[in-house]
Amino acid sequence: MGLRVLDDTEVRARLDARTATEAVRRALLAHHAGTLAAPARVRAPLGGGDLVVTAGRLREQGLFGFRAYDTLVDAEQLVAVWDETGQLRLVVHGEELGPRRTGAIGAVALDAMARPGALRLGLVGAGVQAWTQLWAVSAVRAVTEVAVWSRRRERAEGFARRAGEQLGVTVRVVERAEQAVRERDAVIVATKSTTPVVASEWLAPGTHLSTVGPKGPEAHEVPVELVERAEVLVTDSLAQAAGSLFPAGRLVELGAVLAGAAPGRTHADQISVFCSVGLAGTEVAVAAALVG
Amino acid sequence: MGLRVLDDTEVRARLDARTATEAVRRALLAHHAGTLAAPARVRAPLGGGDLVVTAGRLREQGLFGFRAYDTLVDAEQLVAVWDETGQLRLVVHGEELGPRRTGAIGAVALDAMARPGALRLGLVGAGVQAWTQLWAVSAVRAVTEVAVWSRRRERAEGFARRAGEQLGVTVRVVERAEQAVRERDAVIVATKSTTPVVASEWLAPGTHLSTVGPKGPEAHEVPVELVERAEVLVTDSLAQAAGSLFPAGRLVELGAVLAGAAPGRTHADQISVFCSVGLAGTEVAVAAALVG
Repeated sequence: MGLRVLDDTEVRARLDARTATEAVRRALLAHHAGTLAAPARVRAPLGGGDLVVTAGRLREQGLFGFRAYDTLVDAEQLVAVWDETGQLRLVVHGEELGPRRTGAIGAVALDAMARPGALRLGLVGAGVQAWTQLWAVSAVRAVTEVAVWSRRRERAEGFARRAGEQLGVTVRVVERAEQAVRERDAVIVATKSTTPVVASEWLAPGTHLSTVGPKGPEAHEVPVELVERAEVLVTDSLAQAAGSLFPAGRLVELGAVLAGAAPGRTHADQISVFCSVGLAGTEVAVAAALVG
Repeated sequence: MGLRVLDDTEVRARLDARTATEAVRRALLAHHAGTLAAPARVRAPLGGGDLVVTAGRLREQGLFGFRAYDTLVDAEQLVAVWDETGQLRLVVHGEELGPRRTGAIGAVALDAMARPGALRLGLVGAGVQAWTQLWAVSAVRAVTEVAVWSRRRERAEGFARRAGEQLGVTVRVVERAEQAVRERDAVIVATKSTTPVVASEWLAPGTHLSTVGPKGPEAHEVPVELVERAEVLVTDSLAQAAGSLFPAGRLVELGAVLAGAAPGRTHADQISVFCSVGLAGTEVAVAAALVG
């Protein structure tokens, strides 16, 4: 087999949400089992920005590779996958794979952490990250009463239209973020905001919330009060979540929850929060799943 | 323009030595001028081996990228080049580009450091690295009386045959390394030996020598006595040569010599030694030259 090269058009055509979530679930379990090597990201300074590489090795599948991106010009991302004979098998370039991978992680987390059954879902943010979360969630759970809020209403309207057309999901545009959060089973916050866009008191008991955007101690899209209030705090990578708003001592790894080695939600009234950091190596796993 | 993907067959067909040496010369000058960002290589541990990335940014050409290779299974290398609009322009994969880049660096160094005129050349080692040195040198200088020695005579014979066929260069196989070193204008040592394969006293005054293989303080293919004896010591990257057998205080950077900012050879009787470390970013420069 030679090298396969896939661009965004091919990723859109070939990557379905079920494949992506299954690849991510397997990678999260492998990480817990110690068969996914996912070292900390490495950076090469290029003057005015860095080249950033997140590498991973999937021992079970006999594959390794990386995702490379830059902070210079926000260039096309590159994911490369080798097999363990040393042959370069796959190059995926463009913008599509990364957010879909993140969406798949969020969906696996939501499926494991939210209460069972169909979901009343709220989306805070209507950008590409919010989109891929809905894309992936709708593949693992039945969703009902989806509400979306964006600082720019026309973006939310475009999001709702696209959800109907492409996912067959009815999405209602709401006027205030609060309306996307109150009386929901699950809330996805996916903004670029560095100050909280939701309030802890808006969440009903039992709600699951996922934060995809900024989560640093100084810059974060969800409030500290929510982290303090939540009884279940999970992340896809403890190592990568280090130094975030989330206290390390309270965080549990998603792979451990999936493996049954750590508790996730134990009660229907608990608030659960997923801190999404993008476990390294999952891009390689999703890319590999594209070519079977 | 879309993405170009080139494999070894295409590199062999498209990359001529003149193009490679000119690309490398320009990159070395850019490095001296401060317009080539070439940070230290970065490594991501994957368990049992590392993924290694050497990145570079060529500001004059508006390009950046990297070479990635691994120490796990000695896999195909990958060179990726983006332009500064963020478009991924080029992916080169396989085994050919890296050694040709190294050969081109050696040729530019030899051309700048050896005495003027046609060269009596000696090659110690007959592997791929020795081959690409001869390939590149024969594009920048007339070579006469080329001798090659290898620990395995059949490799040297194959090398000589290929040189005649592909480069039109007559190469004589010699029985002992010494015969490839005595009475030469230039000697290229390109082995994997971790102990010296040449002796300092074999070199006539005025000889230029290049060491491509191991050059650590403990493991090195040329003897410490040669480094002590040489009056001119040059490397393609002071940063990357740090910690080698070569004393930092005596090394001069090749880009500075090419720019006329540092002396190279100042006398016909000087022994000069080139410590080849593979300046980061030069792979990107050679790859970019492939597509013009």
